[in-house]
Amino acid sequence: MASVTAPDLVSGVLAGDVGATARMITLVERRSPELEQHLQPLYRAARSAHVIGVTGPAGSGKSTLVSALAMEYRRQDLTVGILAVDPSSVFTGGAILGDRIRMGGLSGDPGIFIRSMATRGAMGGLARAALDAVTVLQAAGKDVVIVETVGVGQAEVDIVGLAQTIAVVSVPGLGDSVQALKAGLLEIADVHIVNKSDRDGASRTAAELREMLRLSKRQVGQWNVPVQLASSAKEEGLAEVLDAFARHREWMQRSGELERRLRRNASARIRWAATDLVERRLDDRQPMFARAVDAVLEHTSDPLTEARRLVDALI
Amino acid sequence: MASVTAPDLVSGVLAGDVGATARMITLVERRSPELEQHLQPLYRAARSAHVIGVTGPAGSGKSTLVSALAMEYRRQDLTVGILAVDPSSVFTGGAILGDRIRMGGLSGDPGIFIRSMATRGAMGGLARAALDAVTVLQAAGKDVVIVETVGVGQAEVDIVGLAQTIAVVSVPGLGDSVQALKAGLLEIADVHIVNKSDRDGASRTAAELREMLRLSKRQVGQWNVPVQLASSAKEEGLAEVLDAFARHREWMQRSGELERRLRRNASARIRWAATDLVERRLDDRQPMFARAVDAVLEHTSDPLTEARRLVDALI
Repeated sequence: MASVTAPDLVSGVLAGDVGATARMITLVERRSPELEQHLQPLYRAARSAHVIGVTGPAGSGKSTLVSALAMEYRRQDLTVGILAVDPSSVFTGGAILGDRIRMGGLSGDPGIFIRSMATRGAMGGLARAALDAVTVLQAAGKDVVIVETVGVGQAEVDIVGLAQTIAVVSVPGLGDSVQALKAGLLEIADVHIVNKSDRDGASRTAAELREMLRLSKRQVGQWNVPVQLASSAKEEGLAEVLDAFARHREWMQRSGELERRLRRNASARIRWAATDLVERRLDDRQPMFARAVDAVLEHTSDPLTEARRLVDALI
Repeated sequence: MASVTAPDLVSGVLAGDVGATARMITLVERRSPELEQHLQPLYRAARSAHVIGVTGPAGSGKSTLVSALAMEYRRQDLTVGILAVDPSSVFTGGAILGDRIRMGGLSGDPGIFIRSMATRGAMGGLARAALDAVTVLQAAGKDVVIVETVGVGQAEVDIVGLAQTIAVVSVPGLGDSVQALKAGLLEIADVHIVNKSDRDGASRTAAELREMLRLSKRQVGQWNVPVQLASSAKEEGLAEVLDAFARHREWMQRSGELERRLRRNASARIRWAATDLVERRLDDRQPMFARAVDAVLEHTSDPLTEARRLVDALI
């Protein structure tokens, strides 16, 4: 991996090389300036993978479930990329996956790429990085990309919202269905998964979710949000979950919803790239920016006036 | 409130009028286009309040503690603004405070302004809105502004990070101190509060925190992060907490840390205002933007190239 040079990096990713893909995602995480030249060819070459977002409350067994679903995809001979995104891991960086790769039986299979991502710096950065990492995995030829988030805050909703199919994981007991509702997850789910279906109360949780879905009257077009029971431990319901994902994607293609979501994504990415560009240009000329900060601190001006002045002068 | 017109709104806020202040914060939340003209005079007139961020895990009793601290400030004859920010409340909006205002004995006192804010739309929007709302409360003449967040994700860390003094609340038991550490809260705290100090294990939790602080060796300059026991229910330790806040601010002023934090804030606000401006200008000319989205979707171009083209053409 250390010997991979810049042009080789892009061709390495395009050839599906694991080392090149990993290194590219590191560049994506770091938002390094050289990123742009690599992402441009990758974006244009990116194949159309099925991008699936998986979220749900802590303790719902998302990670194990995602590993089990990935193995099920492998049984169907599809290649899988997994991005485990942890917006709450601000300072520690993302090293949560070592054990999981060993435990999940996912190591050594070149058809699976698994990676954890943590945030660095400003809010919003992680969503951009996650989306770029999805592009890298698409360019690396993965058929399916699963973006998994830990926890249920705004950041998670934003990140998972970038997916084509959004799966929300609940578990029986502890009022999880209510918890999901509270965090707004009921509204964004395309597929509900009740995990640990071997536990007591699983079918009651599923029934509650179905009732809540009925009451919320959320039926985007003709898509009827399914509630699927699954158990990673017993390997039950996994093929049915993948089937629900596939049916959702078919419906999206038929209904025009896929086009709508892809447009929304492309629009967000152009906008993000534009604001990144502007922020970089504002960084470039320090003296003028420092004078603007002085004026704001002295209250002789305000951030809006200074921003306007800087944008007009520098961009 | 309905009769307040635009110029009156600004003078109403500056006079400390509750209705005008509330309406102004609503404009801030909505990111309405007319916001700018109001914020400019408010920013220039804003007094230098002590801005305190309070965060901590769910169940730590933050809200009740903040109410109790606000009442303690009132006993010291200082005016207080409270912003309760809930990044997880994406869809429901923020109506969590009705009961609290009634319960907390805070209603009817013009020296306290309390408001909940929820996010609308994109990640990052809430941090900007929270910072603008702080400006509104400063302009309204509050001596102290407390920004309280619910939960401990990246969004919360970002929002609380905008404060001058950051307080992290723990409670005895349930491994809360470890939980705080995990979320990176140990690193950002200027003051630790162990709430519900009447519970068993409060002093052990405080001792654990002190030990962790010792191990982490975080001593920015000469500031020794205090760990303060408090009980909202028994009204114990509240004056001591306020004293810790005041000592932190004095230290910041002496050490130059306040200047550093205010510069960082001003810089972030100018940058945000600049990217807002750019995003608005990109919105303005739809046909060109739509063609860019088409090119990205057809993979004949990529978001970075299109962003560059749009910025150069439109800004």
